[in-house]
This record gives sequence, C-alpha cells and structure tokens, in this order.
Amino acid sequence: MFYDITVVQASKMLGNLKSILEKAAVFAEDKKIDPEVLLTSRLAPDQFPLVRQVQVCCDTAKLGAARLAGKADSAPKHEDSETTLEELYLRIAAVQDYLATFTEADFTDTASRVINLPWRNDKQMLGSAFAINFVIPNLYFHVTTAYAILRHNGVDVGKLDYLGAIPYIE
Amino acid sequence: MFYDITVVQASKMLGNLKSILEKAAVFAEDKKIDPEVLLTSRLAPDQFPLVRQVQVCCDTAKLGAARLAGKADSAPKHEDSETTLEELYLRIAAVQDYLATFTEADFTDTASRVINLPWRNDKQMLGSAFAINFVIPNLYFHVTTAYAILRHNGVDVGKLDYLGAIPYIE
Repeated sequence: MFYDITVVQASKMLGNLKSILEKAAVFAEDKKIDPEVLLTSRLAPDQFPLVRQVQVCCDTAKLGAARLAGKADSAPKHEDSETTLEELYLRIAAVQDYLATFTEADFTDTASRVINLPWRNDKQMLGSAFAINFVIPNLYFHVTTAYAILRHNGVDVGKLDYLGAIPYIE
Repeated sequence: MFYDITVVQASKMLGNLKSILEKAAVFAEDKKIDPEVLLTSRLAPDQFPLVRQVQVCCDTAKLGAARLAGKADSAPKHEDSETTLEELYLRIAAVQDYLATFTEADFTDTASRVINLPWRNDKQMLGSAFAINFVIPNLYFHVTTAYAILRHNGVDVGKLDYLGAIPYIE
C-alpha cells in the first residue's frame, strides 16, 4: 500500500505536472512571452516561484520514497539549477526513472520504520506517519501550487490535468 | 490503511483548513475588510471562489469516506448555502463529526469494493483506485487551493498551517 500511495501515485502526479508545464509552454508560445516569466511567477512575494515548486515536487517524491524504503542514500542528487522548462522535464524524468527502481517489496517494513528528519532538529517519525502526514500532503501541495500559479497566469489548465488518467473499471 | 489515509487524515486536514480560515478572519478584522471579500476571491475568473473550495473540501472528505465504506447514503446533506466564515466552521465541524462515526472496520472491504460514479456517466472504480487516484488528490487539491487564494490575498499562512500537527516520535 505504501508503494501505491507514494511511489506509483507520485510518479503519476509528476507526469501530470509535466503535462501541465507543457500547456504552459504552449501558452507562452501563443502569447509570445518568455516561459521564464511563468517559471519565476508566484502568488505571493514570499512564496516559492513556479520553478522551485516543481523542484520541490521532484524532491518530495524522490526523498519520500527513498526514506520510506530505508534507502535515503540511493536518491539521485539534483542541484536546483534548472532555469528552463526543458530542464524541468529532464528532472521530472530522472525522478520518475528513479521511482521506477522501487518495487512493492521495498516497502514491507515501512509502517514501523523510524525515519530521521535531519532538517527538523533530528526529530523522528514512524514511516506510516511520515508517509501520511508529511510526504503525501507535501507532494499534492506543491503540485497544486504549481498548477495554481499557472492557472492564475491564464494557462488553460483544469482539474483533469491535475488528476491525470482515472483508472475506471473497463 | 484506507481509514488512516482517508478518514483520519481528511478530518485532520479539515481542522487545518479551519485554522487557516481563522487566520483569514483575523486578517479581515485587522484590515477592516468584510470577510466576504475573501470568501468570494479566486485566482482565475473561472475558478471556484474560496467559499466553494471549502465546500468541496467538506464534500470530498464526507462522500469519499461514505463511498469507500459502502455507506454512500449515510452522509449528511449540505445545501452549499454558506456565506460566512462561521457557517463554514459549522459545516467543517459537521463533517468531522460524521467522519468520527467511522472505524477502521468499515474499510475492511474497501480495496475491492466497486464504487459507482453517477456524476461520471455511471462509470465505476475499484475502491483502492478511487481512494488513491481521486479522493486523496482532490482533497489536497482543494485545501491547497483555499490556502493559495488566502496566501495570494496576503493572509499570513504558511506550510505548517496546511500540514498541521506533525506526529513525531516522542
């Protein structure tokens, strides 16, 4: 279950985010504006701009899976140096490739795994709480915020772009 | 697990949303503006305003739990007639009270339950897919969008208001 709600769904949401960014690229071309205008946009002066929202989505997915599987050191490093949509696409693809290396078996012990949070004064959480109270809400927060920044700028995105493919029973 | 990732976490997120709205109330009082200005704000002309975002958060939590537990008819009805923050607080509390009637045992059969989607041409989904691909992403989408509308209007909210209490290991 942790595999499905973090790895599988995170990879899907990154794909949806890429599709949303591709709509931003079309919008920028149509309006004859530099896509960088969108990448540096934000909804409040002290909010992360779009480019940083995408980077954080990638890191939340990557490090969430790595920590929950007890493989924190296996995550690829990224320098947060992207300045173009194409560079963000590459980063998203790199994280999706990394997520594809996990299997359900990697998450057998996740519920009871102790997760260290070095960026929070070395506090610790159980894997189940970390997934449910931290990784998942953060992932959706940053995907939605990226979407909201573009929506506010007039890009033609809708909820279905955010949700992605819905797996109905055939 | 479905109980934890939908009922428990949805109730928590509704509480966080209420705290965010309370910050909006303080902001409106400080600025001497009618809170209705915030409740009717949106980030794009064809986006739901804040009041509707909150209503949809409530419905996503309420109907998500009800459908996943096979108790769709048990959910309380709401008329979407709220126009004040106080009315939204009452709606949030009503949904939290409803969510509190569920137990983990209600979700024993959720993974394989067939969920009917009358608003999607009567298509159907398995409970696991419905929870992971629809209920959870939608819940976080609308909480984040409510947050983003207020953030854009200058209300002093931050990510920790959105995440709520983090259950560290003591």
